[in-house]
Amino acid sequence: SSAPAPIPATLFPGDGIGPEIAEAVKQVFQAAEVPIEWEEHYVGDQIDPRTQSFLTWESLESVRRNKVGLKGPMATPIGKGHRSLNLTLRKELNLYANVRPCYSLPGYKTRYDNVNLITIRENTEGEYSGLEHQVVRGVVESLKIITRQASLRVAEYAFHYAKIHGRERVSAIHKANIMQKTDGLFLKCCREVAEKYPEITYEEVVIDNCCMMLVKNPALFDVLVMPNLYGDIISDLCAGLVGGLGLTPSCNIGEGGIALAEAVHGSAPDIAGKNLANPTALLLSAVTMLRHLELYDKAERIQNAILNTIAEGKYRTADLGGSSSTTDFTKAICGHL
Amino acid sequence: SSAPAPIPATLFPGDGIGPEIAEAVKQVFQAAEVPIEWEEHYVGDQIDPRTQSFLTWESLESVRRNKVGLKGPMATPIGKGHRSLNLTLRKELNLYANVRPCYSLPGYKTRYDNVNLITIRENTEGEYSGLEHQVVRGVVESLKIITRQASLRVAEYAFHYAKIHGRERVSAIHKANIMQKTDGLFLKCCREVAEKYPEITYEEVVIDNCCMMLVKNPALFDVLVMPNLYGDIISDLCAGLVGGLGLTPSCNIGEGGIALAEAVHGSAPDIAGKNLANPTALLLSAVTMLRHLELYDKAERIQNAILNTIAEGKYRTADLGGSSSTTDFTKAICGHL
Ligand SMILES: CC(C)[C@H](C(=O)O)[C@@H](O)C(=O)O
Ligand SMILES: CC(C)[C@H](C(=O)O)[C@@H](O)C(=O)O
Repeated sequence: SSAPAPIPATLFPGDGIGPEIAEAVKQVFQAAEVPIEWEEHYVGDQIDPRTQSFLTWESLESVRRNKVGLKGPMATPIGKGHRSLNLTLRKELNLYANVRPCYSLPGYKTRYDNVNLITIRENTEGEYSGLEHQVVRGVVESLKIITRQASLRVAEYAFHYAKIHGRERVSAIHKANIMQKTDGLFLKCCREVAEKYPEITYEEVVIDNCCMMLVKNPALFDVLVMPNLYGDIISDLCAGLVGGLGLTPSCNIGEGGIALAEAVHGSAPDIAGKNLANPTALLLSAVTMLRHLELYDKAERIQNAILNTIAEGKYRTADLGGSSSTTDFTKAICGHL
Repeated sequence: SSAPAPIPATLFPGDGIGPEIAEAVKQVFQAAEVPIEWEEHYVGDQIDPRTQSFLTWESLESVRRNKVGLKGPMATPIGKGHRSLNLTLRKELNLYANVRPCYSLPGYKTRYDNVNLITIRENTEGEYSGLEHQVVRGVVESLKIITRQASLRVAEYAFHYAKIHGRERVSAIHKANIMQKTDGLFLKCCREVAEKYPEITYEEVVIDNCCMMLVKNPALFDVLVMPNLYGDIISDLCAGLVGGLGLTPSCNIGEGGIALAEAVHGSAPDIAGKNLANPTALLLSAVTMLRHLELYDKAERIQNAILNTIAEGKYRTADLGGSSSTTDFTKAICGHL
């Protein structure tokens, strides 16, 4: 036959509601005839010494081989001697940039209209170094590490992203008035990269002021790039502007062209297995994965079907004020394809 | 005569619009017959070696002696060899807690109604340690320091504040899932203090989630207490919910019962001297100072006059969409006393 060979992609359905929302993605992809073949991996039930976590070595190898994957929510098991699943993935796969598009969903009202921003978070260092110790009793310290290499890398990614997506402005978010050396180095790297993109406006905004401006008028921003913790904070704040983590996609970019898309919301054990979960965040994340694979038509078609289903308002899950099941909402999306 | 001796208080009018808005405070206090005698101090024009900054030793001595003061915006002169004015004040006066009440102003519409929160920020350590260095070329680090002493101190202040102001809940904001030692110690101290206040609900909220909840539904929070940088970020975010730093008061609490109230907005050099500035933030800050002095009646009367003037809407400065001058707005407030 002349059909192209399907593209292998890793799928981590994850825990709690993960398997149900992953099923929604599989169905929508099938209905849209997306040429993807999923390699499913679950979180293990014991620590894999090769990953020092409950993630299996095989699952990481699958992402490394496929260079593309999708991840549902994972609940890190409680206990000692292992690493958080999310942090293990970031570290092992060198997922250096976390990209979170954040836009108002037509027909789903929040306090904000026409939000349309992209937060790009450095995902490997900064406040997440894991380097902490007690100096003397009652005095502890954490190290924030900023490197030229990681700062240039994420800045490059942000400007490249802005360019290929027709975005006009990149804002570097920082607190260099206080952390002159660390955030100062981050800014210096952003400035160096900005020079190579004269067509893109570059500005620097202090994080406290940025948060105030975001809640007053998010339309002031376009693409935001920042060190790890600021990205953690601001990406959640921006998600809140348009309705929360249940509605916003996320994609992690790694060295060597890896893209691991993920729903960043929790695993919601209280509603797991009840056919109540909203698969929107995972579906929109899957769309970012398709764009990364340059399957632009499929991406566009699926995204429109999701947005139109929500806009129509007939089928909505409980978190959006409706009473649809996960499967009915998913069927409605397939119907809009 | 039987009139009580006036209470001496230090006044830093500050730079830019500072003198005009300080004048507004003086007039309103006079009209309300507040028994305060101002000791005015300006930022010097050369570095005082005893403070390593442009703040004069005498001005700090004035606050230490009076234990109460009010500060307008100060623009730190650019150049090397001296410290930021704000940071010098915090350090030299050991201003360990920054308290920012944040409430919706009746009649001044934003996207949020009925906001009523208090952020209490640890103001002396954390990410503001000033300890930074280059490890090797291209690798820099900043130290975040958390101590048991400062964490207990600000937690004590927060619970005490909640209690005397009839607040029901204290939320400690943290990122202890990542910074287990530093933010972990902060939380441990909050828990210890919480035990002594069984009538106040205590909860812990991760900062990213907190910011998302704040923009979705600020009514979920009451009193928030947190390490330095989170306080910097969240207090500005909260100010944004109700209109910005031009409308929100701030007061710094220091060891030995010092209270230094301050407008945290900038010095707005573009409109300085033009009788256009909005004195609301400094006026409301002065009100927090009066409460600290237990001059509750005067505080209430002045606060009501300010809020009623804004609610009435006849006299508003340009930043609030009106066309009143600073002096007309101030006169209107005096008329509402
Ligand atoms: C769960 C937590 C460790 C994680 C983070 O802080 O990065 C989460 O908030 C996220 O944004 O993915
Ligand atoms: C000007 C700056 C150093 C200061 C801070 O970061 O504390 C300001 O943002 C504040 O909140 O008072």
